Amino acid sequence: MIDIDSANMKALEGLFEAEPLLVGMGKAKDLIPGMEGKILLHSGPPIEYERMSGPLIGAVTGAALYEGWASSVEEARELLGSSGISFEPCHEHDAVGPMAGVISPNMPVFVIENKSSGNRAYATMNEGLGKVLRMGAFDDSVIAHLKWMEESLYPVLKSAISNRSNSGEPISLKNIIAQALHMGDELHNRNKAGTSLLFRALAATLVETCDSREKLSRVLKFMDSNDHFFLNLGMAAAKASLDPLGLIEGSSIVYIMARNGTDFGIKVAGLGNTWFTCPAAQPDVLLFPGFNKSDVNPDIGDSAIMETYGIGGFALAASPAIVQFVGGTPEDATRYTKEMYEICAAQNKSFTIPQLNFRGTPTGIDLLKVIETGITPILDTGAAHKDPGKGQVGAGIVRMPSEAFAAAAEAFADRYA
Amino acid sequence: MIDIDSANMKALEGLFEAEPLLVGMGKAKDLIPGMEGKILLHSGPPIEYERMSGPLIGAVTGAALYEGWASSVEEARELLGSSGISFEPCHEHDAVGPMAGVISPNMPVFVIENKSSGNRAYATMNEGLGKVLRMGAFDDSVIAHLKWMEESLYPVLKSAISNRSNSGEPISLKNIIAQALHMGDELHNRNKAGTSLLFRALAATLVETCDSREKLSRVLKFMDSNDHFFLNLGMAAAKASLDPLGLIEGSSIVYIMARNGTDFGIKVAGLGNTWFTCPAAQPDVLLFPGFNKSDVNPDIGDSAIMETYGIGGFALAASPAIVQFVGGTPEDATRYTKEMYEICAAQNKSFTIPQLNFRGTPTGIDLLKVIETGITPILDTGAAHKDPGKGQVGAGIVRMPSEAFAAAAEAFADRYA
Repeated sequence: MIDIDSANMKALEGLFEAEPLLVGMGKAKDLIPGMEGKILLHSGPPIEYERMSGPLIGAVTGAALYEGWASSVEEARELLGSSGISFEPCHEHDAVGPMAGVISPNMPVFVIENKSSGNRAYATMNEGLGKVLRMGAFDDSVIAHLKWMEESLYPVLKSAISNRSNSGEPISLKNIIAQALHMGDELHNRNKAGTSLLFRALAATLVETCDSREKLSRVLKFMDSNDHFFLNLGMAAAKASLDPLGLIEGSSIVYIMARNGTDFGIKVAGLGNTWFTCPAAQPDVLLFPGFNKSDVNPDIGDSAIMETYGIGGFALAASPAIVQFVGGTPEDATRYTKEMYEICAAQNKSFTIPQLNFRGTPTGIDLLKVIETGITPILDTGAAHKDPGKGQVGAGIVRMPSEAFAAAAEAFADRYA
Repeated sequence: MIDIDSANMKALEGLFEAEPLLVGMGKAKDLIPGMEGKILLHSGPPIEYERMSGPLIGAVTGAALYEGWASSVEEARELLGSSGISFEPCHEHDAVGPMAGVISPNMPVFVIENKSSGNRAYATMNEGLGKVLRMGAFDDSVIAHLKWMEESLYPVLKSAISNRSNSGEPISLKNIIAQALHMGDELHNRNKAGTSLLFRALAATLVETCDSREKLSRVLKFMDSNDHFFLNLGMAAAKASLDPLGLIEGSSIVYIMARNGTDFGIKVAGLGNTWFTCPAAQPDVLLFPGFNKSDVNPDIGDSAIMETYGIGGFALAASPAIVQFVGGTPEDATRYTKEMYEICAAQNKSFTIPQLNFRGTPTGIDLLKVIETGITPILDTGAAHKDPGKGQVGAGIVRMPSEAFAAAAEAFADRYA
């Protein structure tokens, strides 16, 4: 009979030893395994076009235009509805994406390598706020901005990141995350400190590797204008750190949680590569002015990997200032973190919460504890408009639905009884 | 009869309206009023050479060498002990300096202008950690580093800061401080967020104004290596904001607290330019390895201007991570902040503490409340070795001695009874 506790301990040891490093950049089609032909990756578990929610339809429409597969929205929609394009989850391709999470072949991606196990994860560059593809916007300004990112931002960042990596000094994302937790970030909806520390870490190398002062100035201004710039990197760090858990027989630790705007899905270490899904939850949102509750799309994004990694909503106690963005009070934030200890197998060894006297963040969601306690994970998240093209409507707290955990628990019992 | 409450309200209104901006840089001798001949400014109230403590003697020795007034330590000591050099407080020259706080004529200084009242304050660039003049070190490496700062760091920063100021976009230090308080700084002994935000704000302009990539890379690396870089700027922002209070008849608000390593001194709004002094306190220090309690010099530095401004030790509740540097627990940090509300006249309108549900920091030390409650201000501070040339020995919490407040209260009663 399998010893679940030992298996979980092994899983957590691997997780705590993970060392995600920023080692390079490249085009998705050149780096991401299986990124061939007309393929679009998206957040969450698998989904066919017909069941996609508005923001995901908006984002895949924009991606088709960005790739030049269509020259109008009508043409794009026709193509997307045909069998000419394959849709696959980022998570099935060693990648993660926030909100709609769409990655198309020509998008540049960061390469994060988990030094302790050698596996890699990929994520696009964060687009900033306002009208952005990840929130389902796809008008000309969105596509033009993506082109600027590909043609100007990407080469400048790539040179600096490669230089750091080639000189044996790749940036440690784990180190930045640990510091940022002591600077008021929870690293999902607040990345102001993480972005600042990354900016500081890269600036001198950017100066050394970019010979156009005009280009570099624009790149620095863009990064400075976007407090969420670190988010995608943090997500890929989490992904690279968690993926090796998918090979650990007998462990009840959840190593993927993700939403595609229609479905919520999880994967469990001891159940390998199988998705367990159910309808996505409806976020409880602090709305931007001009929007109503009925505008809010169901929960969407791979960013739940942050909570799976033991930060984000699980580290809300470290981020009292975030309640101005997601609602509630600092006391609520602390209460959420304390609740999450009840469903986690460990306290993080690298990520600590000063406010809780430097207690490690609740880490390693234990499927069996979720079932025992009836407590499901909470996330803090951005929220998109339910219609394509309308963008972000707010941010808030959302509790994961229990059905996916119940389905996984049944499979776990079947397999290990 | 004078209405003290109205006078205090007027003082605080001025303080809350203050808008300290980073507007330029220059040599001390060219900018600081009265900076003529062989003069050295120092922290705290006035003090003659014979009564100076070790770290201040070390710093003025280093400054004499830096200025070329002496070519050996012996020569410097002889000069310093003669009447050939005048020693005056930074605070008497619109300036502030951390620890020994020595400013000599050729040192570059930042210019901070309080936009709401037009007055200016000055501070040197922070030297970083390790062997530094402000901690009383004065060997060749210290002088060489000061020369590098003057010859390489200063011109690069000056160009960028002037450019921002001339284009009508000077950096708002108040804005950076307000943000940094939400990122775990208290802005006296923890300036990691403030430094990061300043770095972000200046980087693009640095690229635009510096034509040597090699020089700029070195400047950025230095700033990135020094989490205290923002301290001196924050101090000058506080000084520029508080100085106008010295003109407010009838107010019992303390607008200067400063220590020179021998004496502690305060000034009170309604008592104008008069120092009230007493022996400096002995800090309760978390020692660096290899040092003993008996190594610690009495309290030193103008950095108490931060607490006078309503941050630093008064905002410890916003900075739970700082206890790793100054000792104690996050609960202690919160307790200190709560205690300081008892001696302050107001809650800050711009600086808030997320951990206390966004309550404004305790601001405006009311001399009369100090006397009524018997509570004196607490600071968190760096601590220097009591011998010249040995540098920093730790950091910790220190409570200001009551005698200076008692003396000021007596004068206040005499004047306004």
